[in-house]
Amino acid sequence: MNLKQLAKELNLSISAVSKALRDSHEISASTKLAVLAKAKELNYQVNPFASSLRKQKSKTIAVVVPEIDNIFFALAINGIESVAQEKEYHVLIYLTHEDAQKEVSVTQLLQNGRVDGIMMSLSSQTTDFSHIQQLKEKELPIVLFDRVAEHINVPKVTTDDYDSGESATEHLIEAGCKKIAFLSISNNLSISNKRKSGYIDSIKKNNLPNSKNLIIECSQDDEKNKLLIKNLLKKKNRPDGIFASVEKLALLCYEVCDELNLNIPADIKIIGFSNLHTAALLKPSLTTITQPAYEIGRESALLIFKLIEKRGNSIIPEKTVVASSLIKRGSTKK
Amino acid sequence: MNLKQLAKELNLSISAVSKALRDSHEISASTKLAVLAKAKELNYQVNPFASSLRKQKSKTIAVVVPEIDNIFFALAINGIESVAQEKEYHVLIYLTHEDAQKEVSVTQLLQNGRVDGIMMSLSSQTTDFSHIQQLKEKELPIVLFDRVAEHINVPKVTTDDYDSGESATEHLIEAGCKKIAFLSISNNLSISNKRKSGYIDSIKKNNLPNSKNLIIECSQDDEKNKLLIKNLLKKKNRPDGIFASVEKLALLCYEVCDELNLNIPADIKIIGFSNLHTAALLKPSLTTITQPAYEIGRESALLIFKLIEKRGNSIIPEKTVVASSLIKRGSTKK
Repeated sequence: MNLKQLAKELNLSISAVSKALRDSHEISASTKLAVLAKAKELNYQVNPFASSLRKQKSKTIAVVVPEIDNIFFALAINGIESVAQEKEYHVLIYLTHEDAQKEVSVTQLLQNGRVDGIMMSLSSQTTDFSHIQQLKEKELPIVLFDRVAEHINVPKVTTDDYDSGESATEHLIEAGCKKIAFLSISNNLSISNKRKSGYIDSIKKNNLPNSKNLIIECSQDDEKNKLLIKNLLKKKNRPDGIFASVEKLALLCYEVCDELNLNIPADIKIIGFSNLHTAALLKPSLTTITQPAYEIGRESALLIFKLIEKRGNSIIPEKTVVASSLIKRGSTKK
Repeated sequence: MNLKQLAKELNLSISAVSKALRDSHEISASTKLAVLAKAKELNYQVNPFASSLRKQKSKTIAVVVPEIDNIFFALAINGIESVAQEKEYHVLIYLTHEDAQKEVSVTQLLQNGRVDGIMMSLSSQTTDFSHIQQLKEKELPIVLFDRVAEHINVPKVTTDDYDSGESATEHLIEAGCKKIAFLSISNNLSISNKRKSGYIDSIKKNNLPNSKNLIIECSQDDEKNKLLIKNLLKKKNRPDGIFASVEKLALLCYEVCDELNLNIPADIKIIGFSNLHTAALLKPSLTTITQPAYEIGRESALLIFKLIEKRGNSIIPEKTVVASSLIKRGSTKK
């Protein structure tokens, strides 16, 4: 079924049908409805690329995330996709695998009209943000979520990382911990730094030992991380509480405690940021700061569509914060 | 930087530069190289849609899966994406949320040239496969993976569901189980049915009770599933082993056993198909049939590119099977 046949079926000129399909003001509403109904009936489909060239809209948004086999990002993408479906948009997914260079390549690739907007969560290796600045200069709508660049003036959607860092630490103190370690994931990451600030301020406020030795700088290398945690817990004067800034570090603590025959929570209490489905089924169940991953995704997508649709007087907040919740379980029992 | 400026920089006509960028035979190789080098140097980017219209290639593939917050599909997408990156292709992701109608809508949407190929894992509600047949008739490359339609003649990539169903059952029998239940997820799904056949044949071969009451037909409704499992385990004559055909049913068994104060593995042994990162950290650790999710994704993507590139004499196998592995842990200890 091509345009010519469709026009013949409708007893209209090709030009009139084409204009109707493009929603031209030259065509009456009733004719447009008749054309759309017939097009649907005959399963006539507009070539999306030709259509995109005319409308200058790709009807596509991009999501750039470090990993997809991380339940936080999977849930966030679910939230983004729920909004995209409502808007009848397509979603392109790009994974950077925590590689800053890949992140730069992807943003360059996306500057040429393939997408109408980009939602991005930065890699842990990203230290230079000029590629984000470049997107902004090109006036390509962009929203950063979860792992953001604080100083770049684009809309950002995060959870309350500082407050949650504080309340995780307070919870360990209430559970009786006197010497609390913090496992950081990367000094480049906004989330890790804010959680750490919350931890440090809470430690100071409660007059607990505030030693640099208690802040362990972990990386993407799990073998090395495990060794760092092992060395920490082998010490005679080991901590009695651990606050893991990300899920995988909390799980490594479980493995290390198992190997060192340390009992959680009797010997050491553990809390971690996590969206793990199975947190409640671990041995013991893991106390978590649970992030509103789906909501962060939805919120980011709603913002990107506000930017794409450039609704006259809609105000785009630079910072949107969706609160996390503390879920107390076995790993921090008194 | 537009075409005109690029041409000026090169001291060539716009038409010559345009032809060079389209790899026209009218332009010499040395000129093409000079044009490409200058285009790169000046960060000149071809409009992807205009370029797609010319080349009739979208450089995009689609992945249609039931859910993304399921570690199996997340890992499979990782595998697909690794191949797409090598081929410099974009990946569109569509989620059906187990809705057959949504699956049909997506396939219709994709028929108009937006993508060069589709990889799809069917929803549990899909009972009619004419939308797949339609894609095939339109000669749009398609590969089904994991959840496939057996009778449709398109390339399929799966794990060895029947054999793994048999070996999971054998493992429970070796661990001393005499009365083994099977938790099915959907009668529509190839994976569930093949795993069930492996279970039934193994039960028969070992002369164990082969009762329909031991096959529990679960659904997407976890509240109902939990009730079904609870009723099964509350029976005086309850089973001593459970084979869960999918991950989430194995986890529900853990919850029910906890509520009924049944000890795993002393009172009941559990095995489940699962790609859970935390299987080893559960209480007790979960014995799993672990699927090669990443490899299934990669294999599917390699096949779709074979189809897209239609390499002359490349043979496309209709069935590709990547074996799963049995990982013995605490939940099936003697």
